[in-house]
This record gives sequence, structure tokens and C-alpha cells, in this order.
Amino acid sequence: MIPQSLRDAIKVTRAAGRKIKFLYLIPNYQNPTGVLLPATRRTEILAICREEGIFVVEDNPYGLLGFDRPSPNAMRAEDSENVIYLGSFSKTIASGLRIGWALVPQSLKDKLVIASESSILCPSNFTQLTIANYLTHQPWRDQIASFCEVYKVRRDAMLESLAEHFPQEATWTKPGGGFYVWVNLPPEIDTKAMMPKAIVAKVAYVPGTAFYADGFGSWSMRLSYCHPTPERIREGVKALGHVVKQEMSRRGSALN
Amino acid sequence: MIPQSLRDAIKVTRAAGRKIKFLYLIPNYQNPTGVLLPATRRTEILAICREEGIFVVEDNPYGLLGFDRPSPNAMRAEDSENVIYLGSFSKTIASGLRIGWALVPQSLKDKLVIASESSILCPSNFTQLTIANYLTHQPWRDQIASFCEVYKVRRDAMLESLAEHFPQEATWTKPGGGFYVWVNLPPEIDTKAMMPKAIVAKVAYVPGTAFYADGFGSWSMRLSYCHPTPERIREGVKALGHVVKQEMSRRGSALN
Repeated sequence: MIPQSLRDAIKVTRAAGRKIKFLYLIPNYQNPTGVLLPATRRTEILAICREEGIFVVEDNPYGLLGFDRPSPNAMRAEDSENVIYLGSFSKTIASGLRIGWALVPQSLKDKLVIASESSILCPSNFTQLTIANYLTHQPWRDQIASFCEVYKVRRDAMLESLAEHFPQEATWTKPGGGFYVWVNLPPEIDTKAMMPKAIVAKVAYVPGTAFYADGFGSWSMRLSYCHPTPERIREGVKALGHVVKQEMSRRGSALN
Repeated sequence: MIPQSLRDAIKVTRAAGRKIKFLYLIPNYQNPTGVLLPATRRTEILAICREEGIFVVEDNPYGLLGFDRPSPNAMRAEDSENVIYLGSFSKTIASGLRIGWALVPQSLKDKLVIASESSILCPSNFTQLTIANYLTHQPWRDQIASFCEVYKVRRDAMLESLAEHFPQEATWTKPGGGFYVWVNLPPEIDTKAMMPKAIVAKVAYVPGTAFYADGFGSWSMRLSYCHPTPERIREGVKALGHVVKQEMSRRGSALN
């Protein structure tokens, strides 16, 4: 997120008479692009939001999944009164437990407890105790370090095979952690319309439009390298590259 | 619920220009009163709601906890297109798993899935598998039958000691299942204001106002017999009866 674009968006939104309640951010290895928000931008964005009276919701499920170096400090570490921090065990220990945590400004705490109670009454204490026990008795730091090794190899496999098999018109992010690569194709490609062809080739992805509220993202796609083996990733990217090239040539001929 | 009162309430609510989306009911051993909705009233209420275009939400956490005879048929068994049925394992197998289920009219199914996804994404598959495994491999019917024996003894202990220790002006329900007895005291008693005195006497209850949206219920209380042993129930009801009698005599003198 570019701080100046945030300033502009705040102006435009307020000029349209709309109230801004909070800014939602995934600063580390964001879903869907895998990008990291640099430390200096974090500070600047925090200052803007404080100035403008806008809470920041800092969602950090991927923060411990940096491959090459530790992630920058959490934004909440700089501003505990204006940042609602959300943590999760879903990407590190077990997604099926559905347990996370929130660090909340004192002023919002009671309201959040009531909102949570009226939505779910309480989270499962069985799964909370399971996590607590795991954190107490298992070497979870080593476990996460070994996950990072696994994911790093998979990221490398994906980036290498994208370079090998995707058309030169395509561009993509180079994530330093997390699960995702964001690919931009030439704008004549509609990734949602192309999806059935990819599935026939035994590859799935999330079309870019899923991450926009306004229909944007139609020539982009999110690829995930977290689950398949490196061999399967190479195979999948190769097959998907073939689908993309076919689609480009089909669209190209249609345009001519 | 008295069917004619439902007809009246629908009329009054609509006359005030308010839309009615659904009727929420706990037909079996209701929380907070422990009462059972008789089969004939169920049929009549279903007919009213069908006529008036109002969905019925049938919440049935206590249906398997009948002490003396099985509960009447679920309302959904009579009208699967107008009843949203909610089941739960919380009162029978384990409250800490937070797993239940819904049987939903076909017309509402997709909307409910989207509402659930946007609220919680998905329930824990770990706890779902735990329940599925338990239901497959454990004698859960026998387990619930033995719970019913336990709760029945506790209900009897509560009803007997209420008769023994509560003032004759008090009245209460005689539940045929579930966890709760609803006690009505003389109207000069404010059960919420009396609560700290009960807690000093080491007894807790839920003040009646908690179950009304409009401040009604101030001289009522919900007692639960599910957790304590019969001995502790007798002790507790005796101590609470003493608090109530003191409060009545204090209020009585204040009135005079």
C-alpha cells in the first residue's frame, strides 16, 4: 500500500459522503499478492490513520512465515491505541482448529467481546485447550522453522517454473514468505473465463476478481504454492502456462 | 406459547409497521422455563406461521433430555418448507466443541451457507471430526439415557427443596426434561437487585429480566439443576429460600 494513495482514497471516499471505520491490512506476505509492506510505509500509514481518526486492522496470519529474514515489527507495536491486531494459528499450526486471537485497544475491548459473544457465544474451549497444550509442550518454533524451509523450496519451484513456462508478457510477484504468487497476464485474458480450461488441465487458481469489490483483477490470478510438492508445482505451472499461451493466441486471433 | 397470543402479537407488530422475519421457538424444555410445547399447539402454531408467511426457527438443544417420556415430534417433521431446525451437541455430548447442525428449507439453503461463511468462514473440522468419531464409535444413546437419569434426580431434588424452603407465595415450573426451573416471586421482589445477597449466600441464578427485551421478568429467576449434585442443590435452594424470605420481609416492611 502506497501511503499517498491511501491519502487520496480517504479524500475521495469522504468527499462521496461515506464514513470510514477502519483500514484493513495484511502487512506480511499479503493474501493474494504475497507482498510485504516495508517498515517505513507502515510508520507513515499509521500516522495517516491516526491523523484521520481511522482504526487500523492489522491481520497477521503469515508473519512467522518469512523465508529469508524475520518480518518487520507488527504495526501494533508502534501504536497500540489505534491498531486492532489479529493473530491466527491457521497458517502455522492447524487451520482446522479455527483459533486466533486479537490484541485490541482498551477503548474497543468491551465492544469487541460483546460483538464476539453475540456472533458465536464463545469459541470452542476444546480447540483452545488443544492449542494451549500444543504451545506448552511441543517445539512449535522449530516446527514453524521447518515449515518455512518446506515453503521456501516450493516458492522457488513456482518462481522458476513461471519463468520457464509462462509467456514473457506475464509478470508476477516474488514473495519473501507466505503462500501466494500474484500473476498479471495481458489484459485481454479473462482468468475467470479461462478457469474451466485450467481445470481440464488439472490446475486450479483463484481468479483475480475474487480480491476486488469492483470487478477489477480480471486478467490476474492468485497461485498458491503451500500444499503441492515442488514436482507437482512444476508440472502444474507448466500445464497452466500452456493454457495461458493457448488463450492468448485464441484471443489474439479473435482480435485480428 | 399460546397460539391465540401469537395471532395477537403478529397483528400488533404489523399494525406498528414492523416486518416479522421469523418466530424463534424452543419447543422442548425451553430455556429459561423448562416447559414443553404440546403437540396440538405445535400444529396450530405451524399453521398460523404458514398462513402469515413467517418462518419458524425451531431450536432443539434439549429434545433428547426428556425424563419421563420422549419429546413430541419435531415441528420440522410436520413442515419442512417453513421450519428452520437447529440441533446441537452442546447439551448432550460436549458444550466445549461448539458444534451443531441445521436442517433448512431448500429455498434458504444457499443464503444460509453464505451467511455462515461470511460470519465464521467454516466451523472447526477438528471438532466436527471429533463428534463424528464419537457418534460412530461410542454408545451415545446409552450415554444420553444415563444423563437423563442423572438430571431427573437433580430436578427432583430441586422441586422437592423448592417446596420445602421457598415461601408459599412463590410459584415455579415443573420441567419434564432439560436443565431449568423458572421461579416467580411476589412482584415486589427485584431478582436482579437481590443477586448480590444470593451470591453472599453462595448461590447464583439468572435474573428474569435477562430473558425479556423490555425489562419484564424482574420478579422471576431461572434456576439450573444440571451441574450440581442433589446435595448441593438442596443446600443451595435452602440458602436461596432464606435470602428470598428475608428480602420479602424487608420489602414488606418497607411497603408498610
